[in-house]
Amino acid sequence: MNEHLIDYTLHLADNALILGHRNSEWCGHGPVLEQDIAITNISLDLIGQARNFYQYAAELTNARPILHPAGDGDLARAVTEDDFAYFRDSPGFKNILLVEQPKGDWALTILRQFLFSAYQKILFEKLKESKDAQIAAIAGKALKEITYHLRWSSEWVIRLGDGTEDSHARMVKAIDELCGYIDEMFSPVECELEMLNNGVGADVITLKEPWMLNVNEVFDEAGLAIPSTPLVHKGGKEGKHSEHLDDILKESQSVARAYPAATW
Amino acid sequence: MNEHLIDYTLHLADNALILGHRNSEWCGHGPVLEQDIAITNISLDLIGQARNFYQYAAELTNARPILHPAGDGDLARAVTEDDFAYFRDSPGFKNILLVEQPKGDWALTILRQFLFSAYQKILFEKLKESKDAQIAAIAGKALKEITYHLRWSSEWVIRLGDGTEDSHARMVKAIDELCGYIDEMFSPVECELEMLNNGVGADVITLKEPWMLNVNEVFDEAGLAIPSTPLVHKGGKEGKHSEHLDDILKESQSVARAYPAATW
Repeated sequence: MNEHLIDYTLHLADNALILGHRNSEWCGHGPVLEQDIAITNISLDLIGQARNFYQYAAELTNARPILHPAGDGDLARAVTEDDFAYFRDSPGFKNILLVEQPKGDWALTILRQFLFSAYQKILFEKLKESKDAQIAAIAGKALKEITYHLRWSSEWVIRLGDGTEDSHARMVKAIDELCGYIDEMFSPVECELEMLNNGVGADVITLKEPWMLNVNEVFDEAGLAIPSTPLVHKGGKEGKHSEHLDDILKESQSVARAYPAATW
Repeated sequence: MNEHLIDYTLHLADNALILGHRNSEWCGHGPVLEQDIAITNISLDLIGQARNFYQYAAELTNARPILHPAGDGDLARAVTEDDFAYFRDSPGFKNILLVEQPKGDWALTILRQFLFSAYQKILFEKLKESKDAQIAAIAGKALKEITYHLRWSSEWVIRLGDGTEDSHARMVKAIDELCGYIDEMFSPVECELEMLNNGVGADVITLKEPWMLNVNEVFDEAGLAIPSTPLVHKGGKEGKHSEHLDDILKESQSVARAYPAATW
């Protein structure tokens, strides 16, 4: 139970951290100051959610029974949130592949945020009722932010999809590029099934229908549609990542790894 | 008056925007998640201040009498905040050289934020009383954020200066690198002198003494000192910038310039 709960918590954290990183690449990079600030604020919300989950994963990890006898000279220090963020390699990350894809253009960034926020919203509404009080508390707290992220990204999907010929074409291209990453959200891996059985997690398979309803409603207004037979890319939740995650980690972990013993 | 007021407003905006850009380079790049979020929040505050000043500069620019007869085929559209942020070249920027220097290590980032926040604090306390109601309002609104930035960076200066041998050495090195950029803050250029004479700006020469008092107080506690005869680098306020500003602009303006007519 405990190992699966740690994995599950890390999965929730990694989704938020990696998307937060990707979105933060827009900070100060236009095309419009106002939206620059909006997407960076979303980054900070996501990294904040990741921190909460990492702190809980650290607490669970540190509470584990010690498997080897004390005094073996390799006494483990307590694990912190930063160990999870900065000192794991790619196969240790359990995020879905959707969030690690390059930020692309503004249309792709918007579309991904919309698909993910719609997913987070229905997932966290279930997790708010989790038997695990910590998971429930973090999900409940995050829902307010997620509701805003979903509204903001929905408005942008409509604005771009129902905008100029160019912006519409960009949205269609973004959908083509991302639709293969949707199914992974609704395909449970071991830790999710275990957490579902323990009343901690949610049944992600059943989340697909309400998610599709929400997405189609916005897409209808935007004049967009999801292609019916997309290629499916999975494996991220189990540590099988694209080279894009390595790129993110190489950049984001370099400072922490260069000074692992720094007091800051 | 009006041209000098526009220049002055842009000077205040550019300082905030460029430092906001520099700090945002830390987002998602450690060394510690918590501080990652703190420095990115400071970035957002600074970019928000820049937006307020740019909006005012745009308003002033759009209110200028039209110099050439209408109907000459080159009818100017209204200027916006984004034109200032994304469509000026390096010589058009009026920020001090301090803020465009590379982010360096964490010690340098912290030191720069401290030196700048201490400056902004005493400057904006004067500007809060400006005869120009807009400048006064923006300064007054920003002061709350600046007070926090100053407290946060002061605490870090003390923590690093009075920390380990390594962190102290890093702070000393950062001071060596940045002390030549201090004097520019207190050396007025034409638009500042004009604005002072009109009761809009502040007398930056007289700000140096209270600034030194504040800095020395924190440095004393941190076990640090400002070298007495630094090299002095100036010219940023008048558009003479280092290659570092070009690097920032190349990166931050590329998206906006690639799609100048985009509806987003």
